Amino acid sequence: MIQDQNPQRTTLEKMGKFALIHHLNQPFCPSQPSTTNAVSDDAAVLDFDHQKTLVAHDLLIEGVHFDLAYMPLKHLGYKAVVANLSDIAAMNARPTQITVSVGVSNRFTLEALDDLFDGIRRATLDYTLDLVGIQTTSSQKGLIISITTLGMANEAEIVYRNGAKDTNLLVVSGDIGAAYMGLQVLEREKQVFLVNPNVQPDLEAYAYLIERQLRPQARTDVRTLLHALEIVPTAMIDISDGLASEVMHLCKQSQVGCHLYEDKLPLDPQFMNTCEEFNLDSTTVALSGGEDFELLFTIQITDFDKIKGNPNFSIIGHILPQSDGIHLITRANTKIPLKARGWENSEFL
Amino acid sequence: MIQDQNPQRTTLEKMGKFALIHHLNQPFCPSQPSTTNAVSDDAAVLDFDHQKTLVAHDLLIEGVHFDLAYMPLKHLGYKAVVANLSDIAAMNARPTQITVSVGVSNRFTLEALDDLFDGIRRATLDYTLDLVGIQTTSSQKGLIISITTLGMANEAEIVYRNGAKDTNLLVVSGDIGAAYMGLQVLEREKQVFLVNPNVQPDLEAYAYLIERQLRPQARTDVRTLLHALEIVPTAMIDISDGLASEVMHLCKQSQVGCHLYEDKLPLDPQFMNTCEEFNLDSTTVALSGGEDFELLFTIQITDFDKIKGNPNFSIIGHILPQSDGIHLITRANTKIPLKARGWENSEFL
Repeated sequence: MIQDQNPQRTTLEKMGKFALIHHLNQPFCPSQPSTTNAVSDDAAVLDFDHQKTLVAHDLLIEGVHFDLAYMPLKHLGYKAVVANLSDIAAMNARPTQITVSVGVSNRFTLEALDDLFDGIRRATLDYTLDLVGIQTTSSQKGLIISITTLGMANEAEIVYRNGAKDTNLLVVSGDIGAAYMGLQVLEREKQVFLVNPNVQPDLEAYAYLIERQLRPQARTDVRTLLHALEIVPTAMIDISDGLASEVMHLCKQSQVGCHLYEDKLPLDPQFMNTCEEFNLDSTTVALSGGEDFELLFTIQITDFDKIKGNPNFSIIGHILPQSDGIHLITRANTKIPLKARGWENSEFL
Repeated sequence: MIQDQNPQRTTLEKMGKFALIHHLNQPFCPSQPSTTNAVSDDAAVLDFDHQKTLVAHDLLIEGVHFDLAYMPLKHLGYKAVVANLSDIAAMNARPTQITVSVGVSNRFTLEALDDLFDGIRRATLDYTLDLVGIQTTSSQKGLIISITTLGMANEAEIVYRNGAKDTNLLVVSGDIGAAYMGLQVLEREKQVFLVNPNVQPDLEAYAYLIERQLRPQARTDVRTLLHALEIVPTAMIDISDGLASEVMHLCKQSQVGCHLYEDKLPLDPQFMNTCEEFNLDSTTVALSGGEDFELLFTIQITDFDKIKGNPNFSIIGHILPQSDGIHLITRANTKIPLKARGWENSEFL
């Protein structure tokens, strides 16, 4: 089983809050020109000059959003940042700073927090972000991570959810469903491990799925890719909650309908094989899986030639008037109303 | 005992995340010119034009930072916002927007969340803030509230912790220690209530203390008051973690020492009476109590005439070279090194 087994144990109690924040902040080195003042004061001071400020935030709770039995703390730190960046990327903006608050129960050691913040630091390096605020506090149970991401964009660049128009094409980046199947594989291995801790799992056949679950990437590159193609999306949203529910959000806020084509969904072969192995319908998982952190957007039909055949993007449907509703067109060419089941694990919200 | 007794119980499970966020956002109405786009998209879009962006954040956890046995949800929502505003006020900046993430266990109903957000809404009205982001999620245990506050200021106005200089005067707004004693009174009443639920508490003699604990105010007015006095602070910090530890932070970051005078500490008569009743040393409580949300700042000695006798402020000491250390001068005129004990309840951080 994938686990952190760190022999060093330094209790947080002895350290005190301020020394801990100072310690956790040490490895971080601000590099964004817009960061004026970072962790050392009551508030961070940022300078976005003439650009707009973007703000996204998220709250991750142990036992609800992650299971430390198969999610190493480094990966968790990395993923927690990525999930937030995805929201800024979905506005066609550039993420620049993050603040991190963590609540920890007394079973967590300094070394555990160091692992978590090492993952956060790697994400800040990969995405050129500055950490501008750290808060630490005690929790009564488990680990709680709250991240706020700041970003910037020129007004003209920003893409909202509500700009999709009739005849627009519906496009998704990358492939979908893999993160959810990665979670299924890890959950199964956890059960095997609980029954017999000596069984060594062979996860090679699921490497891509597990990578998508444990070390996802935020599609901050989509902005650059579309810019190079001279395409300005009309609406955009990230699909962390599952494709179907995000298609419905985008359509609802844009007051349009759409056709989504089952045979156009971009699915990885490893994903399809694993769905079969788990006896799960790949379309259902692709529509409801969640956590893929890909972007869903609409473009004008005149941009079709610019994007067709591009390996980064798949045209999966088209926008219709609102009165036409939101439908999935199946491989058998039947038209069924799209349902958003969302991705629910131990969550009730 | 102070308790919310709401007969209506609507489970959150039935509602779903997106309908809940939509519902909670309904009563809020953005009014800040800098708010371009609020709750409806992946991220909020703000426009601070030429001004700097300030960011503060906080994580509050049930059983660690608050006890719902005597903290009604409305007050909790209000106080959670106030605590964050205080950080922006301590930069001499103007808070303008907040984002709120809440994690709730399944014992919370829609009506409970409505109460919490009603308190948040009242704070946004009192302080002219816009709520620009709501996230809701399940928690495994209790209520978790994460708030991020955005603010704005001209570069020249911003006051950091590190600007205090030798001969500066050390000033605090309002009075101190009352919030901590309010908590002691409420804790005592909770114990009485647990033994005999029929005892009706008479809390009139402690009204001010309880008000300071349950419905504190952020000193966003200090910026305006000082502006009117034509005083620019050289350093500033909020004293939510207790006066002694914040004096030490300010001195450490400014690389100075100071003398703090016991007889100059601004204490309310109700606070002093209650300390006596609880057999607690009022100076110790005033120095270590915390949660007063007053501001501690330093000013040039030439500003003395402008501030002396002002009912909003108390000069409590003066800055010295770092080599002189940080000392409390007692009423008996003895000089003892200041110790930061901080405010610790069930927290270990």
